[in-house]
Amino acid sequence: GFPGTPGVQGSPGNSPASHHSAFSVGLTSPVSATNVPIRFNKVFLNEQRHYDGISGKFRCVLPGVYFFTYHFTIYPRDAKVGLYRNDRPVLFTYDQYKERDLDQASGSVLLKLQAGDEVWLQVYGEEEFSGIYSDNTNDSTFTGFLLYPDFTEENST
Amino acid sequence: GFPGTPGVQGSPGNSPASHHSAFSVGLTSPVSATNVPIRFNKVFLNEQRHYDGISGKFRCVLPGVYFFTYHFTIYPRDAKVGLYRNDRPVLFTYDQYKERDLDQASGSVLLKLQAGDEVWLQVYGEEEFSGIYSDNTNDSTFTGFLLYPDFTEENST
Amino acid sequence: GFPGTPGVQGSPGNSPASHHSAFSVGLTSPVSATNVPIRFNKVFLNEQRHYDGISGKFRCVLPGVYFFTYHFTIYPRDAKVGLYRNDRPVLFTYDQYKERDLDQASGSVLLKLQAGDEVWLQVYGEEEFSGIYSDNTNDSTFTGFLLYPDFTEENST
Ligand SMILES: [Ca+2]
Ligand SMILES: [Ca+2]
Ligand SMILES: [Ca+2]
Repeated sequence: GFPGTPGVQGSPGNSPASHHSAFSVGLTSPVSATNVPIRFNKVFLNEQRHYDGISGKFRCVLPGVYFFTYHFTIYPRDAKVGLYRNDRPVLFTYDQYKERDLDQASGSVLLKLQAGDEVWLQVYGEEEFSGIYSDNTNDSTFTGFLLYPDFTEENST
Repeated sequence: GFPGTPGVQGSPGNSPASHHSAFSVGLTSPVSATNVPIRFNKVFLNEQRHYDGISGKFRCVLPGVYFFTYHFTIYPRDAKVGLYRNDRPVLFTYDQYKERDLDQASGSVLLKLQAGDEVWLQVYGEEEFSGIYSDNTNDSTFTGFLLYPDFTEENST
Repeated sequence: GFPGTPGVQGSPGNSPASHHSAFSVGLTSPVSATNVPIRFNKVFLNEQRHYDGISGKFRCVLPGVYFFTYHFTIYPRDAKVGLYRNDRPVLFTYDQYKERDLDQASGSVLLKLQAGDEVWLQVYGEEEFSGIYSDNTNDSTFTGFLLYPDFTEENST
């Protein structure tokens, strides 16, 4: 007899495209509180709602490797900020302010997170280090996204 | 008679790897014009040619979520720059320059774009805010890449 | 005779999920040497061990497009740093320090790498440009990750 018809096309490759987590937020006014997470209330992107504007924290739903980055307008005083992971600061950014020399400061890092891990930014120290400024035409931002999921952990969950 | 031999194996499934968009560009000389897109003429990467060095604009071909980031050398005057999306600034970066204290300023954001959307950087204000410097050993850069495609929109197009 | 049975289903699409390369490192103390790669000895992430803390170099194993970014605390002198690719600086970041005005400087770029390519950060110039500071609560970091692999080159290898 004749050969059979060709098989059907394979299923699409396992795509990380179905595993997304990304947020990008900013401030509408200067930071006013210390010793608590900075609550970014201006949303550029928060499709999966993994960033919570009420608590100021990103909460990991998909375990994996995440990229976080932030950019601050430093004015009218010094600023020192910690990137916290579950109550412990893992990255610090400090910039001194001098009159008429407004500055920009930024940081970024890759962290491997487990489901439930929380990540946020917080002034490290007292009010004298809280110089993170924002208004209609000046931004201070916090952005994060899943670089790649940890399939191992996901499968074992 | 006997049945024929089995058909040939189906073709492999689609790979998300075929959905890329990425550019990374810089300047060879200081910014000289205001009120127009900054035209980055030094190419680190522009494989898909979605960044147009003539217009200074990135044009979205693949709908989805994009990461944009820029880093400026601030000299010899203040600089205020807006990241524009279709004629509207969505992110602002300002840094004041003081003599003998050359600075660096940067910003980044995630934006969900539709096909045809354009994104660029532009001095926000007049010449007094145009202090974006570049030469052979000083860079000012603009980088963007597709983080993940919006399959929903693609299918409906 | 009858036609044969249909062919077996095609294999799943190639997933970039199995092609990862990412590192994120920092310093525990200020940079002390010039004319050699900065050796980042604090590890935030280095799963695939493509960053070598001994040489201070990232070595490309998977050909493709990579994103690199770095953030420096500038203190107590100016800093000028080059991002090197195989012994040639491709990106420069310079920031001047002024007393009591500690600054932050950063850079980022996308580069297409071939297997074996090496990328690192190095003070560009002599000790007067080596003001990259770090201690327990001040960071200077270097991060890189594969944005997308170059399947073409991989297949031809
Ligand atoms: Ca400044
Ligand atoms: Ca400076
Ligand atoms: Ca400063």
